[in-house]
Amino acid sequence: MASQSDHKAAIIDGKAIAQTIRNEIAEEVRHLSQKYGKVPGLAVVIVGTRKDSQSYVSMKRKACAEVGIKSVDIDLPENVSQDDLIAKVHELNATSDVHGILVQLPLPNHINEEKVLSEISIEKDVDGFHPLNIGKLAMKGREPLFLPCTPKARLEFCIQTQIDADAHTCTILSNEEPLLSKQYSHKIVKAIHVQGCIELLSRSGISIKGKKAVVVGRSNIVGLPVSLLLLKADATVTVVHSRTPDPESFIREADIIIAAAGQAMMIKGSWIKPGAAVIDVGTNAIDDLSRKSGYRLVGDVDFQEACKVAGWVTPVPGGVGPMTVAMLLKNTLDGAKHAIAQ
Amino acid sequence: MASQSDHKAAIIDGKAIAQTIRNEIAEEVRHLSQKYGKVPGLAVVIVGTRKDSQSYVSMKRKACAEVGIKSVDIDLPENVSQDDLIAKVHELNATSDVHGILVQLPLPNHINEEKVLSEISIEKDVDGFHPLNIGKLAMKGREPLFLPCTPKARLEFCIQTQIDADAHTCTILSNEEPLLSKQYSHKIVKAIHVQGCIELLSRSGISIKGKKAVVVGRSNIVGLPVSLLLLKADATVTVVHSRTPDPESFIREADIIIAAAGQAMMIKGSWIKPGAAVIDVGTNAIDDLSRKSGYRLVGDVDFQEACKVAGWVTPVPGGVGPMTVAMLLKNTLDGAKHAIAQ
Repeated sequence: MASQSDHKAAIIDGKAIAQTIRNEIAEEVRHLSQKYGKVPGLAVVIVGTRKDSQSYVSMKRKACAEVGIKSVDIDLPENVSQDDLIAKVHELNATSDVHGILVQLPLPNHINEEKVLSEISIEKDVDGFHPLNIGKLAMKGREPLFLPCTPKARLEFCIQTQIDADAHTCTILSNEEPLLSKQYSHKIVKAIHVQGCIELLSRSGISIKGKKAVVVGRSNIVGLPVSLLLLKADATVTVVHSRTPDPESFIREADIIIAAAGQAMMIKGSWIKPGAAVIDVGTNAIDDLSRKSGYRLVGDVDFQEACKVAGWVTPVPGGVGPMTVAMLLKNTLDGAKHAIAQ
Repeated sequence: MASQSDHKAAIIDGKAIAQTIRNEIAEEVRHLSQKYGKVPGLAVVIVGTRKDSQSYVSMKRKACAEVGIKSVDIDLPENVSQDDLIAKVHELNATSDVHGILVQLPLPNHINEEKVLSEISIEKDVDGFHPLNIGKLAMKGREPLFLPCTPKARLEFCIQTQIDADAHTCTILSNEEPLLSKQYSHKIVKAIHVQGCIELLSRSGISIKGKKAVVVGRSNIVGLPVSLLLLKADATVTVVHSRTPDPESFIREADIIIAAAGQAMMIKGSWIKPGAAVIDVGTNAIDDLSRKSGYRLVGDVDFQEACKVAGWVTPVPGGVGPMTVAMLLKNTLDGAKHAIAQ
């Protein structure tokens, strides 16, 4: 049985790869400012004083500083009106040294998040929220300006998969702190980790072309966009989901598995084809009384079992997660390069 | 062997179903004008005097008349400037009794088709070209205002699949007249037949939920959007394409096959699971010296063989093809209903 073999999968170290990417970005930013005297700018807009949002935003701002991206900090009061917030977005759209705009979610209940996000100029939509970006992503021959990123979207990812998967249990996480899903009723259409997934594959030397890829989960934020990207990369793609009668039967055939169902350790070692590449996008908190936090994070894949069968596997945490901020920075850099090229 | 059985697949008569739909539309149009004094309006814009375009446009205008939709005819000279054409589109966007806008393709070489099409207001984008519509199509929880339709897009479909499938031979057709693909270098991003495919399934009483669906071809105009729709309808969807090493192995497993590869009779009876529903979107002209035209039209499926194995199969011509004008009319009607509801 697979789980009894001595095989050890190569563990894809998302943290290390993300750091490599950040270093590359820092190098490019240096080059840009030397050659053109321009520094990429990311505007990070935060409304109110939610602790988790604050911690995200400071994390993102730190990350910008680390690579030399100028972060433009916009802190608005909890009671800011939607109109004023949108006016601020328009102002940032028009600001030439801002190349990326990030509006930290969730926004207060009196604000329509979808409306606000759709006001972000597509050129500066570094999170890839914009329907037009998703649309372009879906269409061959039209490259989206950005592929979706942003860690916070894991929230919507969980919510989305909960909605998709009905009975699926799924704890909403912000960064690595579990929160109650009730806190998040919003359902922003966006994608996440997608760029990170593909980057992890390519940086691990895993070719996609002609491979059988199975995407587990069909959320707007992971399943759909990642399946479209794999298709663009010439994989034969199957999307399985909560309505698939026998998911194992598909997963067992896959050379590449993207697990994005939001269900803790649903994918067993016996479901994995020996040598397959397993990218685990799931992040679920399960009880663990041995921890003082009382929980630990696990993916949608049984990591221990997967290690004995798969060719490559991403850990949770430390796999896809760390890639997202790196992708956000990369999108901001690309936005600046795009602007300079104009 | 399947091909030796006496089984007879139910043949899905697209012509008859399309006529039923047209009758339903005519009924609804009558109702709208009686109850609200409003008549749906479709603006059909044609530039120049291409014979094939003219024949399409007159076909569409006749179809409108038949169901009581007012068709607003805009005939522009071959040498119209792009700006003037766009100005006309904007004018139609602003015209309240126009609920659908159709710009007949191809446009003269001095005009950027993509640009022109993207100027059509999304509410009136009855062909579903608009990236925003495709984007919404790709995103659960966001219904596109319209699903793509329009027969002319078969051109782009063929071109697209030719591009996808490299060596695939594919004759470009306008209506049922074969043209040389060289005549069409444009590659508008749009989808086609998609709405018709789903409609044919549902009107034939074929349930999609939980079924294994295989889409053959990944074009923007059929493969991608139809796979997204099937996924929305809870099928487990696999997209195979020209880079799939062993397409049969996937197709043999399918409960529902959508053939959109643009390759004449590539899908053999032996590739089809007994009882499967086969929707053939392909339209290919092959030599037939027994016809005075010297050719006949065939689909991507070997129809004779498929009849002996499949549960349902669409003929070519007379399957998906006739549905598209019906869908165009339906989208125009829906646009009018949408406008009245405002």
